[in-house]
Amino acid sequence: MNSGIKKVLDRVASGEMSTEEALKILKNEPFDDIGYAKVDLHRQIRQGSSEVIYGEGKTAEQIIGIISSMKKHGQGRVLITRMDAEKAAEVAKEHEITYNEAAKLAYTGDLPEADGIGKIVIATGGTSDIPVAEEAALTAEVLGNEVERLYDVGVAGIHRLFAHKELIMDATVIIAVAGMEGALASVVGGLADCPVIAVPTSVGYGASFKGISALLSMLNSCASGVSVVNIDNGFGAGYMASMINHVK
Amino acid sequence: MNSGIKKVLDRVASGEMSTEEALKILKNEPFDDIGYAKVDLHRQIRQGSSEVIYGEGKTAEQIIGIISSMKKHGQGRVLITRMDAEKAAEVAKEHEITYNEAAKLAYTGDLPEADGIGKIVIATGGTSDIPVAEEAALTAEVLGNEVERLYDVGVAGIHRLFAHKELIMDATVIIAVAGMEGALASVVGGLADCPVIAVPTSVGYGASFKGISALLSMLNSCASGVSVVNIDNGFGAGYMASMINHVK
Amino acid sequence: MNSGIKKVLDRVASGEMSTEEALKILKNEPFDDIGYAKVDLHRQIRQGSSEVIYGEGKTAEQIIGIISSMKKHGQGRVLITRMDAEKAAEVAKEHEITYNEAAKLAYTGDLPEADGIGKIVIATGGTSDIPVAEEAALTAEVLGNEVERLYDVGVAGIHRLFAHKELIMDATVIIAVAGMEGALASVVGGLADCPVIAVPTSVGYGASFKGISALLSMLNSCASGVSVVNIDNGFGAGYMASMINHVK
Amino acid sequence: MNSGIKKVLDRVASGEMSTEEALKILKNEPFDDIGYAKVDLHRQIRQGSSEVIYGEGKTAEQIIGIISSMKKHGQGRVLITRMDAEKAAEVAKEHEITYNEAAKLAYTGDLPEADGIGKIVIATGGTSDIPVAEEAALTAEVLGNEVERLYDVGVAGIHRLFAHKELIMDATVIIAVAGMEGALASVVGGLADCPVIAVPTSVGYGASFKGISALLSMLNSCASGVSVVNIDNGFGAGYMASMINHVK
Amino acid sequence: MNSGIKKVLDRVASGEMSTEEALKILKNEPFDDIGYAKVDLHRQIRQGSSEVIYGEGKTAEQIIGIISSMKKHGQGRVLITRMDAEKAAEVAKEHEITYNEAAKLAYTGDLPEADGIGKIVIATGGTSDIPVAEEAALTAEVLGNEVERLYDVGVAGIHRLFAHKELIMDATVIIAVAGMEGALASVVGGLADCPVIAVPTSVGYGASFKGISALLSMLNSCASGVSVVNIDNGFGAGYMASMINHVK
Amino acid sequence: MNSGIKKVLDRVASGEMSTEEALKILKNEPFDDIGYAKVDLHRQIRQGSSEVIYGEGKTAEQIIGIISSMKKHGQGRVLITRMDAEKAAEVAKEHEITYNEAAKLAYTGDLPEADGIGKIVIATGGTSDIPVAEEAALTAEVLGNEVERLYDVGVAGIHRLFAHKELIMDATVIIAVAGMEGALASVVGGLADCPVIAVPTSVGYGASFKGISALLSMLNSCASGVSVVNIDNGFGAGYMASMINHVK
Amino acid sequence: MNSGIKKVLDRVASGEMSTEEALKILKNEPFDDIGYAKVDLHRQIRQGSSEVIYGEGKTAEQIIGIISSMKKHGQGRVLITRMDAEKAAEVAKEHEITYNEAAKLAYTGDLPEADGIGKIVIATGGTSDIPVAEEAALTAEVLGNEVERLYDVGVAGIHRLFAHKELIMDATVIIAVAGMEGALASVVGGLADCPVIAVPTSVGYGASFKGISALLSMLNSCASGVSVVNIDNGFGAGYMASMINHVK
Amino acid sequence: MNSGIKKVLDRVASGEMSTEEALKILKNEPFDDIGYAKVDLHRQIRQGSSEVIYGEGKTAEQIIGIISSMKKHGQGRVLITRMDAEKAAEVAKEHEITYNEAAKLAYTGDLPEADGIGKIVIATGGTSDIPVAEEAALTAEVLGNEVERLYDVGVAGIHRLFAHKELIMDATVIIAVAGMEGALASVVGGLADCPVIAVPTSVGYGASFKGISALLSMLNSCASGVSVVNIDNGFGAGYMASMINHVK
Repeated sequence: MNSGIKKVLDRVASGEMSTEEALKILKNEPFDDIGYAKVDLHRQIRQGSSEVIYGEGKTAEQIIGIISSMKKHGQGRVLITRMDAEKAAEVAKEHEITYNEAAKLAYTGDLPEADGIGKIVIATGGTSDIPVAEEAALTAEVLGNEVERLYDVGVAGIHRLFAHKELIMDATVIIAVAGMEGALASVVGGLADCPVIAVPTSVGYGASFKGISALLSMLNSCASGVSVVNIDNGFGAGYMASMINHVK
Repeated sequence: MNSGIKKVLDRVASGEMSTEEALKILKNEPFDDIGYAKVDLHRQIRQGSSEVIYGEGKTAEQIIGIISSMKKHGQGRVLITRMDAEKAAEVAKEHEITYNEAAKLAYTGDLPEADGIGKIVIATGGTSDIPVAEEAALTAEVLGNEVERLYDVGVAGIHRLFAHKELIMDATVIIAVAGMEGALASVVGGLADCPVIAVPTSVGYGASFKGISALLSMLNSCASGVSVVNIDNGFGAGYMASMINHVK
Repeated sequence: MNSGIKKVLDRVASGEMSTEEALKILKNEPFDDIGYAKVDLHRQIRQGSSEVIYGEGKTAEQIIGIISSMKKHGQGRVLITRMDAEKAAEVAKEHEITYNEAAKLAYTGDLPEADGIGKIVIATGGTSDIPVAEEAALTAEVLGNEVERLYDVGVAGIHRLFAHKELIMDATVIIAVAGMEGALASVVGGLADCPVIAVPTSVGYGASFKGISALLSMLNSCASGVSVVNIDNGFGAGYMASMINHVK
Repeated sequence: MNSGIKKVLDRVASGEMSTEEALKILKNEPFDDIGYAKVDLHRQIRQGSSEVIYGEGKTAEQIIGIISSMKKHGQGRVLITRMDAEKAAEVAKEHEITYNEAAKLAYTGDLPEADGIGKIVIATGGTSDIPVAEEAALTAEVLGNEVERLYDVGVAGIHRLFAHKELIMDATVIIAVAGMEGALASVVGGLADCPVIAVPTSVGYGASFKGISALLSMLNSCASGVSVVNIDNGFGAGYMASMINHVK
Repeated sequence: MNSGIKKVLDRVASGEMSTEEALKILKNEPFDDIGYAKVDLHRQIRQGSSEVIYGEGKTAEQIIGIISSMKKHGQGRVLITRMDAEKAAEVAKEHEITYNEAAKLAYTGDLPEADGIGKIVIATGGTSDIPVAEEAALTAEVLGNEVERLYDVGVAGIHRLFAHKELIMDATVIIAVAGMEGALASVVGGLADCPVIAVPTSVGYGASFKGISALLSMLNSCASGVSVVNIDNGFGAGYMASMINHVK
Repeated sequence: MNSGIKKVLDRVASGEMSTEEALKILKNEPFDDIGYAKVDLHRQIRQGSSEVIYGEGKTAEQIIGIISSMKKHGQGRVLITRMDAEKAAEVAKEHEITYNEAAKLAYTGDLPEADGIGKIVIATGGTSDIPVAEEAALTAEVLGNEVERLYDVGVAGIHRLFAHKELIMDATVIIAVAGMEGALASVVGGLADCPVIAVPTSVGYGASFKGISALLSMLNSCASGVSVVNIDNGFGAGYMASMINHVK
Repeated sequence: MNSGIKKVLDRVASGEMSTEEALKILKNEPFDDIGYAKVDLHRQIRQGSSEVIYGEGKTAEQIIGIISSMKKHGQGRVLITRMDAEKAAEVAKEHEITYNEAAKLAYTGDLPEADGIGKIVIATGGTSDIPVAEEAALTAEVLGNEVERLYDVGVAGIHRLFAHKELIMDATVIIAVAGMEGALASVVGGLADCPVIAVPTSVGYGASFKGISALLSMLNSCASGVSVVNIDNGFGAGYMASMINHVK
Repeated sequence: MNSGIKKVLDRVASGEMSTEEALKILKNEPFDDIGYAKVDLHRQIRQGSSEVIYGEGKTAEQIIGIISSMKKHGQGRVLITRMDAEKAAEVAKEHEITYNEAAKLAYTGDLPEADGIGKIVIATGGTSDIPVAEEAALTAEVLGNEVERLYDVGVAGIHRLFAHKELIMDATVIIAVAGMEGALASVVGGLADCPVIAVPTSVGYGASFKGISALLSMLNSCASGVSVVNIDNGFGAGYMASMINHVK
């Protein structure tokens, strides 16, 4: 944990964080027990960003309570994922949030300045993969990254991808989002010289088995430098890409 | 069955078949019962090519017996698939065969003249897919097709495939053979304007699940004009491609 | 790509295509970027038919936009698959379409003259397989094929199939559509001397696992000359059959 | 149990069983505990035939011990299944057995007179299914049934099956043994007017998944009057068929 | 087919069938093509009972049409399975039917006299399995069998089953219906000396995987004389049991 | 059964049970046949607690009937699981019950005194696992156990679990409830020196496959002293934990 | 950890452990890093028994090294599981061990006195399940339990189990070991009034899928008080049972 | 590709690459066609490192040929993965290689200087995971990274991991290698503030399904910043980690 504290101090030293903010964080108990949840207040120390609220399976009341706890303890920007429009409307009555319905994602406050090493490029195989891609894109933006969207460049018309080869070559990290046979990840992985995070989506029917086909495809990619997150896990990909884009 | 008989007569009329051969065929019982097998003698009438012997799970003695029955009843070139080297050596003692060890395939007689509409191109993702590709290639050649081999052009280095785009564009049918994530079929399917037969192979490890990953990938291809055969089924792909190349 | 251009020129030379149409196509950018989609405008050059719109997971607005882009760039007849009745009604307000509710398929313009090598026969195991069969049939008709429908000839009463043996023997390509145990594909494959495209359907219950049983059955067909498309993929089968029926 | 005793008495009354045999059975403890096994000695009372020894996973010594126990307690003919040749040779040193290597099955004593209602027909899709079929056939014969073998009549050449339609129509029970896509069961089920026991075999490769494809196919048979046993379970099918053939 | 005709004649000879009925049947075309269906009119000749209408995936109109066709051609009692209450109400407007909502099954006419060899006992593991059991029971009754219901005798309280051991011992066929772990089939199979048809049901949750657990359990039964039908396939079990109960 | 009777007598001797209650139990028939159910009345003798009603797949009427039968025969506290709010409202009209909507569980009468060896600790990975945990907690309380709830201590912020290490070390049994990757069970199992019952939940998405991922994780736990119940089976875990907490 | 230390002290106080042993344990570093392994030396403090060596995937040299490390640090009796005979012979050259070949299990030193609450009964479905049962039995004995073996009492001849009902009723914990359909666990669970640990075995063939069938069966047991460990995990069951038998 | 060329030039400018090397690379054909393989010679331009040879399914002769082709065209250090000892011995006769038998990996030349951003930490759950971890470690070292090994720190004794928390907090990238339930990835992911690459291994038995359990576990990790590669894919993890450690 010391290294975490050291990071907080480094941020204070470099002016990234005010003494007040640091004080609040360092004085925190490691978590706040609010009965149905033990809100992790040291995650910012441990991992450099506040806890993220996974909205599915939580009631609007529970989400509101967790945001309140986080705010009370000086946790910065709060990210809420997998929250449907109805719950979002409930939450918006108590807390000011920006909500993206396609991505089912909300956050409090403004988007931060991008402070990563380079650019994150997010490519999708088709139009139907966009909601997952947007979850990744917004997550990355909330975490301080410049994001470039490159949608509907699947391998059925591979010239659409090749027309953007420069973009692929200039990326620091690429997120490849695709359903059906998920071949996009391999093709992008074969072209790029940066890490590729592959996100299988549940887009497809029949033997796509709600994303299993794309998932297996991506895990077996013959291209090197490709790793995979869970089906439809745009958040996970955005978070991982941000970590890579902030490596030091 | 009448249309089958008509075809035999047409072949006689056109000189493709001698009256003797036709007579033999038309006089045949529909099958020869040799106990452990009922050798299909009308398949040439029904489907235009003799029965093929699936060697796996048959003893060398049984294979020899079936070839003998087929020869006795005037069936032409005999194709034996999935026969290991040991059995092949046994069979070679009784019948003159040409055997390809990688493809585990044998045939009697010479390769026929190619009489198809055009060319069958067989592409593989990697070097390890070659045995399956050869099963397809030899099957097609035995059935009277011109075959072009295009091996190791997987998507991890997609420029190797693009360097042969002309070949792809000139094919009448393409067989795409690949293991791991099987993305080759989709990329080829997106480029070509002819039917593509996809053959998943059991090449890979871990979550490739002995070809399931490639199989699912190919079934879910986002490219149109791709159909799929069983894992490692080079024979099936070669046979189907030949049928397409002889369509009328 | 040159061969694609050559084909356009050939079509002009043979009068299949007017100079105006050809000009429009050749002057096209390879795709039109409309944000949520990169509409493939060179597919007609590459593959001989316009891009097909996969309706599932797209909003009516997106479908309308893509049709508009295609029309603007001189793409001919547009095919939209997997579009439910509600979306179709929305689309119909902007573009003139013919819609088939069972098949969930629409197209713009009239059906073309059939110009294939022969006839495509589409057989189903039962009455419940008809929607998938119709998707295949209409796709094939939109792509210029003569189609013969042979519905409810499953193996539980195999004399119904045998009563139409002549039809089977005269086909250029057969599409076998079946759920449950999918045995139809093997039986048809054993009788026919032309390529058979097998379409597993999700018809059944329990251990049919929404089409997996039929899919596996068809992939393992002991009959030669059978290849398989995804579960319920009538479109894919119709497209593949058309390609075979237009082979050259 | 009373009805079991009644049956023993009935058999004595009808002369099927001697008083000595009956006495032995009725005096038996319900089982003999020999440490590694508790040999079921009342099964003949409960179910009309002695316990069957499943040889797999038992040592030759254990098998010998169980046979000894059964003999000592007057159990009649003993059937041993899934015993490989090596174990069989060991067992043969201690007990007189008839062993069939293909079926991996042995029995003590002679085959009994057939005393069933009619005939059991056993059909296979191919030559490779014969070992499983023989396990079924011998089991049925050991249990007192007339068996007719109809091998290699798979649907790829369906005329071979149709040539034996009379046999199908005359059967009391049919056992349909097939691997790959297992379509034989449905076709036979559609033709026959008697119960059909379907046995999927592990014959095939790739997506046959060692018999799963055939198993699912048979479970989903669109023909009525078909029930299924475990993959490669020839014994189970033969036993079930015998029960049906002796129904009263 | 001759043996089928012979059976019709036998039934006439024995007075089971009037000359008029027989005439109607023998004069029939083998099937009636009504577009969306080819109604099998020779099934009574081939299999001794009329075609059964599988209601799922058919519209009420289609069901009505098929019943009409069957009636017009003198087919006796019509059985319709898997028809929900709404469709049943529609059908009832056109044809007089008896409908059982739990079993989702209807039939025309009265139940016939039971004319089987003995009694069919239908046992269930729990109360939730009753709908599937009723589908089996009614099917068997429609086909002329005496049925005894033995519900909620699962192995968690095995004395409930043992209290009815006499019933088990007296049965001619037993149908064991169970979800969850499906152990009932094995326990019944170990006790009974008649054929047992096992029906896995989709009752359960979690790792019951909608009946897969029970299905596998039943396929692997260590008891002999057990065969299995598809998950929730009460009809199939009832039909098979009736065939066994009418064996000759 | 004798030992069961002995236990009843022991309870009378020790004053745990009145002579009247004992009399009622001992005079009971082993079960009450009410048609759709055979209510197990000897379970208290056999297993020390009354039968539990599994509410899913039963109608409110059936549940009411079973409670009535149990009450009539002097069965104590009745537990009903997996009963949705609507059915609970119906049942509440006839019988006095306490209902917990999250856990979908009801019981008659008051909670008993805790009389176990020690404390049952129930830990969850997240907030969304609480309903399953409550089913376990209430079951255990109904069966006479002291329960400590420790919710939202998943491994993503492992210090939350470590902050309660004393609780873990003091438990007599621990129930670990988690979805997603289910790692909680292994971590708790590695820390605790008492039996751990792991309950996988269906919380998660994509490759969590409705609890399969957590289930497999828990079955493969590298920590010793962990056993597993079905996905979402809070009841089973609570029951098992209670048995362990009452071992003698 | 304090409670762990307290337990050591308690054992010293009660004379269960000598001051020397306690000293050694309390002075230990928490683990010994020997490169390829970090031997857990505090497990005895944390969990009351030394670390167990999982032999599979370790070389004989590695196993020898770990035993040496454990001995050097005063860890008592060492248990090694899943070690084949060849490795055992190697290990025996360096350390004195008792080895059971069927169970593939070894331990150092003598078996301790049984000091549990009661008896552990271990039942198997068949003879082939004995190796897994012996792994459980020996593990329990090494951990200080009295074990009663009850082998070959599967449900196909359920009277063999019922003949030992007293044993079942007297047990403190029962381990039910079975392959194939694994019904034994449910039947035992329905009879017993103590916790049942179910161990699925990989005994069976075809659709037993190497133990999956039994595993699912046991997870879905309709009997209460049954929890499950991994396929063939006799060790895990023995360990869990011992924990239950020592609960306080 | 231009950006690739630019990178070569940049490397020349910075002195990382000599003009001779650069010339060789820039003059290269994009690939060398040696029949059974098309050796990718532009991968260094495209991706910054030479092609890697996947040894499985290739003969020693083929591997030798590919190395020769790469050397001839000035490709630097060659990495060969999944090559067993026998093939390695063959290859070593023709080319000088360093071979690690546990990891089944070889490379030509010396290990380069580490030039990454920081340190790669590789942690394993157990001793049996070491071969996969070594494949990752050596791959990373060949690609110019400093690697720290942290073996046998699985969650069953979590204090072993916690004793190395500093190491975890100082890493630039972590590779977590684990079989069985794979919980290590989640625990490490929850502690670390850098990207974690999870590698499931096939270590385990029964329901570990050769790594599927660990794979699913890792895909469903509740910790953020974890992505996954194929089962046993140490190479893929090492390559990905190196890319991250060289991000710019």
